[in-house]
Amino acid sequence: MQLQQQAKAAAGRRAARPAVSRIPVVRVQATLAAPAPSSATVQPHGRVFNFSAGPAILPVDVLERAQADLVNWQGSGMSIMEMSHRGKEFESVIQKAEADLRALLNIPANYKVLFLQGGASTQFSMIPLNLAKAGDTVDYVVTGAWSKKAMEEAKKYCNVNVAAKGDNKSVPDPATWKLSADSRYVHYCDNETIGGVEFKSTPDVGGRILISDMSSNFISKPVDVSKYGVIYAGAQKNVGPAGVTIVIIREDLVGHVRPEAPTMLDYKIHVENDSMYNTPPCWSIYICGLVFEKLLKAGGLEAQLELNEKKAAILYDAIASSNGFYNSPVDPAVRSLMNVPFTIPSQPDLEKAFIKEAEKAGMLQLKGHRSVGGMRASIYNAMPIEGVQQLATFMKEFAAKHAK
Amino acid sequence: MQLQQQAKAAAGRRAARPAVSRIPVVRVQATLAAPAPSSATVQPHGRVFNFSAGPAILPVDVLERAQADLVNWQGSGMSIMEMSHRGKEFESVIQKAEADLRALLNIPANYKVLFLQGGASTQFSMIPLNLAKAGDTVDYVVTGAWSKKAMEEAKKYCNVNVAAKGDNKSVPDPATWKLSADSRYVHYCDNETIGGVEFKSTPDVGGRILISDMSSNFISKPVDVSKYGVIYAGAQKNVGPAGVTIVIIREDLVGHVRPEAPTMLDYKIHVENDSMYNTPPCWSIYICGLVFEKLLKAGGLEAQLELNEKKAAILYDAIASSNGFYNSPVDPAVRSLMNVPFTIPSQPDLEKAFIKEAEKAGMLQLKGHRSVGGMRASIYNAMPIEGVQQLATFMKEFAAKHAK
Repeated sequence: MQLQQQAKAAAGRRAARPAVSRIPVVRVQATLAAPAPSSATVQPHGRVFNFSAGPAILPVDVLERAQADLVNWQGSGMSIMEMSHRGKEFESVIQKAEADLRALLNIPANYKVLFLQGGASTQFSMIPLNLAKAGDTVDYVVTGAWSKKAMEEAKKYCNVNVAAKGDNKSVPDPATWKLSADSRYVHYCDNETIGGVEFKSTPDVGGRILISDMSSNFISKPVDVSKYGVIYAGAQKNVGPAGVTIVIIREDLVGHVRPEAPTMLDYKIHVENDSMYNTPPCWSIYICGLVFEKLLKAGGLEAQLELNEKKAAILYDAIASSNGFYNSPVDPAVRSLMNVPFTIPSQPDLEKAFIKEAEKAGMLQLKGHRSVGGMRASIYNAMPIEGVQQLATFMKEFAAKHAK
Repeated sequence: MQLQQQAKAAAGRRAARPAVSRIPVVRVQATLAAPAPSSATVQPHGRVFNFSAGPAILPVDVLERAQADLVNWQGSGMSIMEMSHRGKEFESVIQKAEADLRALLNIPANYKVLFLQGGASTQFSMIPLNLAKAGDTVDYVVTGAWSKKAMEEAKKYCNVNVAAKGDNKSVPDPATWKLSADSRYVHYCDNETIGGVEFKSTPDVGGRILISDMSSNFISKPVDVSKYGVIYAGAQKNVGPAGVTIVIIREDLVGHVRPEAPTMLDYKIHVENDSMYNTPPCWSIYICGLVFEKLLKAGGLEAQLELNEKKAAILYDAIASSNGFYNSPVDPAVRSLMNVPFTIPSQPDLEKAFIKEAEKAGMLQLKGHRSVGGMRASIYNAMPIEGVQQLATFMKEFAAKHAK
């Protein structure tokens, strides 16, 4: 309720401003020597509002710092990309990144933090190969495309029990999950990027080891890490550039890999070598570190969650107040704060025009995933509230123009 | 012989110039308001000569381009790090990178090019998992630390025959290799980064499938790709930032993965998805592409080899003409053009001072690998000849000061 009030207040403020959705037209005219566009259209560095689901928008001040230091990092005479990963400069970078992440998520001392390669897709095999033996039973909860993919990979290695299956629009009540008595772990995806379905609290799995793929909502909110055995996340949504995957693992779960697993898929080898068994993806880790530092300075994850709730409420309110012109396919109880899919149910032909006109107005990558259709606005941590406000205003004006 | 003459000519030119090894002193004085340092000391952007073995020096003009486009790539309004990998912008980047690499190495049409994560260390398992079945015999030639590591990983999956073993300082004559009659492939490392041992031609393996780890000399010279089944290389030596591994694989070798292998370790899944089965390491691929483009414009790999031979000759000549003050532990027939280890055999205590004084003179990361000791100068493609000349001059003056 509070969020809706905030969104309405925000909408009220917007009403007092000139309609920003007209901007694209002004912009096009500007290239034809018409009046200059208003300041609202001009993003620093000529940047757009980028609603990509991932790789995704990064904080502009982080990009500016990386740009300033790209050719000569902090007076070292070298780029971060050119440094030995075993030198004191890069060691300071990776150690600070880990320390700041630990502070952000209040990670308990008995958890290890790893910066790995291979994406969440590699974790889909690492988890069963490290945490279960052949024939062991493992529980998977399937709420969308990504948890399904994780489940299918685990079938290669274990006896997989699908404890619950959603309809890509909702989350089955954890009280109804059919967990195995003897499962080695329970795996779920905290936020389904494609469907826009997000858990609002940590599910109770009766003392079993809980594993979560948090690729698309990692560090978007506080999480009680002590409730988990493993949390993992590809960086390219909320954290940094593609190419690094963050794994937070309880230390007693390390050291049980199957002998036939590739060495690079053994958590222990990476724990023992502080993520430097082989050359790590240094640049990606460096950018993640800048993002962690920024979040800490801005008040940590409580503050970020508050902002994320405010941003999401603006969009969901724009959908709810459209008199059915827009529709969110997702159960209101589990609507994602990160990925907001929506459609134009009565006139689906208009969706293409919506995406095209939004693009002209400087709002990019709004096309929905092909399996869902329609539009999807990914509004990760780094999306400024102004971008969400501009999109909501655009949605209102588009609806006003086309509603029958 | 020709190379030595070139080196001597270069040494002659150097003799006519002021001794650059004095520069550090001038530099220190400069901060005390002494005369400004000569132009030879001032690298653009305050950069040093970085002799790191990897991650390693990158071309400064590539870094400048990446810096200029970092916040807004080519007017797209987004950084390369923020773009959907499935958008037209990034697709153009990865496609151009592949096309330019194909042109550089003249890669035949029946070879696939992949940009993967996980480093050469992940290839150590992918190769046996994709190219051999359990119980199959595979041949490994061990000429240093990296080929040994590859061999040991293969033991998990195959019957490994060590066809030849070097002493870390030489390459056993391929005519003496004890290859198996029925081996599925022969694996060797074309350049051992730690020992500085490099093959000078493609070994003849009697029609067997030949696989080469070229991590530390990839695109440093022309290679007849058609002689190989698989060539692979971590990017962080000659090509780009850490986090991407390039694999060139003959297409008939794709599609034979063992069913128990992780999906991410199946070459076929990456071939079928043009390296985008999951989110690729976009930034690293982008930088590799800039490097490929630069090399093509500069005359391709013939020209690069000529320059690399010239650079290496300057250092090996500085060692040879030191009256034994410096020593190269490597058989002259296989001395690497990329990694030049050397010691001060009669006064090993001086090596620390050498490294420290070189650092003061703006020549960094010259410490040898702990398993070899002494010094190691890595002089990859991107190391300018001026950096090598400065190091050779420094070596001469250091020897003159300390020789007994």
